[in-house]
Amino acid sequence: MTVKQLSMPELVDSCLELGVPGVGLWREPVQSYGVEATAKLVRDAGLTVTTLCRGGFLTAIDPAERAAALADNRLAIDEAATLGTDTLVLVSGGLPTGSKDLHGARERIADALGELGPYAEERGVKLAIEPLHPMYVADRCVVSTLAQALDLAERFPAHQVGVTVDTYHIWWDDTAPAQIARAGATGRIHTFQLADWTTPLPEGVLNGRGQIGDGSIDMREWKAYVEAAGYTGPIEVELFNDALWARDGREVLAETAARFVEHVIQ
Amino acid sequence: MTVKQLSMPELVDSCLELGVPGVGLWREPVQSYGVEATAKLVRDAGLTVTTLCRGGFLTAIDPAERAAALADNRLAIDEAATLGTDTLVLVSGGLPTGSKDLHGARERIADALGELGPYAEERGVKLAIEPLHPMYVADRCVVSTLAQALDLAERFPAHQVGVTVDTYHIWWDDTAPAQIARAGATGRIHTFQLADWTTPLPEGVLNGRGQIGDGSIDMREWKAYVEAAGYTGPIEVELFNDALWARDGREVLAETAARFVEHVIQ
Repeated sequence: MTVKQLSMPELVDSCLELGVPGVGLWREPVQSYGVEATAKLVRDAGLTVTTLCRGGFLTAIDPAERAAALADNRLAIDEAATLGTDTLVLVSGGLPTGSKDLHGARERIADALGELGPYAEERGVKLAIEPLHPMYVADRCVVSTLAQALDLAERFPAHQVGVTVDTYHIWWDDTAPAQIARAGATGRIHTFQLADWTTPLPEGVLNGRGQIGDGSIDMREWKAYVEAAGYTGPIEVELFNDALWARDGREVLAETAARFVEHVIQ
Repeated sequence: MTVKQLSMPELVDSCLELGVPGVGLWREPVQSYGVEATAKLVRDAGLTVTTLCRGGFLTAIDPAERAAALADNRLAIDEAATLGTDTLVLVSGGLPTGSKDLHGARERIADALGELGPYAEERGVKLAIEPLHPMYVADRCVVSTLAQALDLAERFPAHQVGVTVDTYHIWWDDTAPAQIARAGATGRIHTFQLADWTTPLPEGVLNGRGQIGDGSIDMREWKAYVEAAGYTGPIEVELFNDALWARDGREVLAETAARFVEHVIQ
């Protein structure tokens, strides 16, 4: 999604050229290119698909909406299995129109996980609940903290349900380091994503995630937390950023790889 | 601030006309009208000044900036005392330019409270740390949760330092009800403020606080939490909203009072 301006073949080429060994994919571009075709393209290139983003949106009260959401999530699990990734990231969904009941919405997510977890396990896919920054709580994700995500995940086996640790969403939270340790202790860190925090936030607050190094987040500090918690998996950089999308995608990917070296692994 | 388009005399007149018994004031309009003149105007009208907003911005590293911030906060305490309110709301301040150290910034706030608390006590003023929504953490307030605010406040006597409970900033937080109880148990709820949460958020996310009843927050629920925690003080409505500021101020104040009756106290 960081370079959504690239076509799927351009993305794969650019990763190979830069020595980027894996890529997190989003459902919409995968569906556009074709799920089987994407799987073959990426497999033939020797790239790992680190995660598929994203399922979720499981807070509907209306039975028909809820059934549609569950069906779409089963499809997302199937897509993940076809792509050869073991992780499907879930964004839980916001409040249904007119509702003010955050607790009820969170319980409906738990109900849905109970249905989706076993389906995912049968296909070798783990669900990774992503807490989103509290500014998204009303319209996008009622799960705002790692603690809330783990409260949900721990109702299920770790190989069915874990969490996504994304710096952009949790960096403000002084309890997050302890929650990362909690997640690691039960093998529930299913992916680790980076984006930097820059201000001012844009209208709608969706597409202002900062390039690594441009903002206020100490990336090495968060990498150290997940490593201390036993995480050895891939690190993804996921930037929703109108300014980056307006640029040449190959250039943005090269810049992102360089920033990753400079601010994360050096 | 909800009706900043009104002059000080218009504000006082409108409160009297609507039967609103108290008003929270902001420093800038008070300074423009004159601190002594405002105090006399409000006192003669029989209105209570519920709080003065706002001191704070105590995170500077530079010694000269830090000294200036402390001096300005002493002035704010003096102004509060002159206005006859016992509560000064504090917005802590964001990260200094170039810093990524949230913990260090929070510790500098604690240092400043140690200097300001006794000064405030001598003048009969309590400091009320306001946790701001985590979307403000970088540029405005490194204190994002009631738990963090109480961790700071509890280093000092309750009659020196407590917290501001504002629905807009904490409604997403499932641990906030327990923290309100914690604050109430030691007499640290120094004020209670309301604003509703509406989306989409505007650019910069400052001036999109929703009119009571327009958004996702159950006001009665939060009122019940502070009451269960023993709070019997005033309830303030504080709306930063470009659309409301563009309207006739008397009309907005009347609407706000009606919404308060409908969504909070009925």
